[in-house]
Amino acid sequence: MKLITLLTDFGLQDGTVGVMKGIIWGEAEDARIVDLSHAIQPQNILEGAMVLGRSAPYFPFGTVHVAVVDPGVGTERRAIAGRLGDHFFVGPDNGLVTLLLEWCERWQKPTQFVQLNRPEFWRPQVSSVFHGRDIFAPVAARLANGIALEMLGEPISAPLRLNIPRPTPLQRGWHGEVLHIDHFGNLETNLNRNHLQAFVTPLVRFGERIIEGIVPTYGAGKPGELVALLDSADQLSLSVVNGSAAALLKAEIGDAVEVINKPRVAIGGLVLSE
Amino acid sequence: MKLITLLTDFGLQDGTVGVMKGIIWGEAEDARIVDLSHAIQPQNILEGAMVLGRSAPYFPFGTVHVAVVDPGVGTERRAIAGRLGDHFFVGPDNGLVTLLLEWCERWQKPTQFVQLNRPEFWRPQVSSVFHGRDIFAPVAARLANGIALEMLGEPISAPLRLNIPRPTPLQRGWHGEVLHIDHFGNLETNLNRNHLQAFVTPLVRFGERIIEGIVPTYGAGKPGELVALLDSADQLSLSVVNGSAAALLKAEIGDAVEVINKPRVAIGGLVLSE
Amino acid sequence: MKLITLLTDFGLQDGTVGVMKGIIWGEAEDARIVDLSHAIQPQNILEGAMVLGRSAPYFPFGTVHVAVVDPGVGTERRAIAGRLGDHFFVGPDNGLVTLLLEWCERWQKPTQFVQLNRPEFWRPQVSSVFHGRDIFAPVAARLANGIALEMLGEPISAPLRLNIPRPTPLQRGWHGEVLHIDHFGNLETNLNRNHLQAFVTPLVRFGERIIEGIVPTYGAGKPGELVALLDSADQLSLSVVNGSAAALLKAEIGDAVEVINKPRVAIGGLVLSE
Repeated sequence: MKLITLLTDFGLQDGTVGVMKGIIWGEAEDARIVDLSHAIQPQNILEGAMVLGRSAPYFPFGTVHVAVVDPGVGTERRAIAGRLGDHFFVGPDNGLVTLLLEWCERWQKPTQFVQLNRPEFWRPQVSSVFHGRDIFAPVAARLANGIALEMLGEPISAPLRLNIPRPTPLQRGWHGEVLHIDHFGNLETNLNRNHLQAFVTPLVRFGERIIEGIVPTYGAGKPGELVALLDSADQLSLSVVNGSAAALLKAEIGDAVEVINKPRVAIGGLVLSE
Repeated sequence: MKLITLLTDFGLQDGTVGVMKGIIWGEAEDARIVDLSHAIQPQNILEGAMVLGRSAPYFPFGTVHVAVVDPGVGTERRAIAGRLGDHFFVGPDNGLVTLLLEWCERWQKPTQFVQLNRPEFWRPQVSSVFHGRDIFAPVAARLANGIALEMLGEPISAPLRLNIPRPTPLQRGWHGEVLHIDHFGNLETNLNRNHLQAFVTPLVRFGERIIEGIVPTYGAGKPGELVALLDSADQLSLSVVNGSAAALLKAEIGDAVEVINKPRVAIGGLVLSE
Repeated sequence: MKLITLLTDFGLQDGTVGVMKGIIWGEAEDARIVDLSHAIQPQNILEGAMVLGRSAPYFPFGTVHVAVVDPGVGTERRAIAGRLGDHFFVGPDNGLVTLLLEWCERWQKPTQFVQLNRPEFWRPQVSSVFHGRDIFAPVAARLANGIALEMLGEPISAPLRLNIPRPTPLQRGWHGEVLHIDHFGNLETNLNRNHLQAFVTPLVRFGERIIEGIVPTYGAGKPGELVALLDSADQLSLSVVNGSAAALLKAEIGDAVEVINKPRVAIGGLVLSE
């Protein structure tokens, strides 16, 4: 048994995701197929990379992750496949693999990539606008069937990487930003457990709102209350209990979030980080 | 072969449902997984209970139903699993199982519940905000693999139940309410075939609108016409032929719907039930 | 292994699609099930026929396509099943099969249809409002299990067909229209590669906008640019690079799109060629 995950910005109404499954099961009938997301914002490679990077680690050894957020389909951008530790990636070489790659590097897993340039493993006719169907789905099916990665194309030294916004240090804390807004309106930031470690009572600032302390879970506050917590990927997240932090704060991706060590003495007004 | 159904309020864009499938298939590779709904209104336990209660009876013996609408995740609320006749339930103990439980009682099927308190059947690290991934998915996989329910935790006498709004009798009919609005804008009420049985020609009242008689199916009226019928769960439903009753009537969950036996003589105005 | 595809206008929130899968897997446990789309506009048979017609050809031999966009459920409209070349169709006889049928005729594949009138292959109780659950899902499972089509009902000569809008010739080109607007806001027309063949430099007209030439892929223009291309089904499509043509042009299904051969010399009137 092999698992194949699919992540796209295709939406679910047009039949395009279904067609990719038809191609896959036509080649690899024992594969299990999991939809990671097909609601990535159109052409938003960073969002796709984040959802892939945070989801892939929970899949079994040997899983093949197909990601198609592909504004450059049919242009010069390369099509690639890679082995990342015990997982495989198939998709355009546009940065979608960035966070999955960082995860492997953090755990010192070996990685290896090829450029897909062997049409004998693709559909016979390749549309210049739908490589998900004509290249990535058949290649994923081959990987699920056990073909060696090296068979699929020429080795390349490294895939393209996105610049992921990183937290920057403040005098007494960290300046981060909102990277993702989830279905519940939770604001996930690029700050994580490590950025909070030294602090007895962290203060979390979003615009003029200051949240004191980190709660352990959503239900630890009162309904409607704005809280900060570590989400299931261990990232600092701003949430409204039984509500939407995105709606309450009119927040958008890229908005600043700061975490500051609470001083021992009382502080005045807005001058929190000095 | 075992079936596992998933019902959540997670939406489909963040990869969280996909991650639960990765966990399940990592443990139980022969399971079939069915998405019941991931579009339950956030934190709306009653809606989750209704969709689960009306859907589960159509699944084969042995199906494991995982339901995660869980505003209390990580708090004192218990995590439970249960056997309900030939089906299994896994989820938080917050009332999600209520209608599935009533269905079993109506058919006199035995039920049995345990509190999930044996971490050896969970993921090694349990996030306090995502029990769907760390507790419920692995427990469901174990049940699909045939583990005995009793192994998973301590027996409990009864799970928590929601108060489902019940119809109340009128002098010549019943007062009910809208419990669910479906994708087509049909208004499903808590009135059913039994509440109509004694009536030759029932009148159905919603606000100032009165519908005379029950049609057998959606297409039995003219396009745009407001009709009343028994839906596929045998509940009284208000529909607009080729349209949306919710939009036409500006209806919301909880709105009153009455069914009244039509008097033999003509009636005036609003005095329907006398 | 047999594949079953599902296409409906049911949406995904009410559990109805999940119930169909429960019925199918209760009868045919080895079937693979693919969701083609459950976001067909309610009661829009033409949209359903188009998504089915363009998706089905990518599925393996023996695939059973279940389509339920069914405003006439429970009325006199027939329920049918058919063999179309190496594929099967199950659904209401309301035109949903039209484009799949045309595809078979184009490739001279034999077709054969029966009216579903043998209740022994259905669920024991048939709701007059949900034949997807009670008739089409169990019949699809039987076909996946290998039952002969002829067993399921009486032969019929031909299923009902929709009138698909066809391009009409202009003096120097073709008048077509928008048939489908996809998730990205691309406008798919009923014009295809054949309508462009004779033209050196086609001009594509939508309202007062004129696009000169056909680009090979979405990324061939500048972000925000309106382009014309042949989409993955080889239909002429209007797109905005990294954007939505539907939003830019405020386009709707049925809007006119014309393709005209660029004259060698300048012409008067609407200044088509410069």
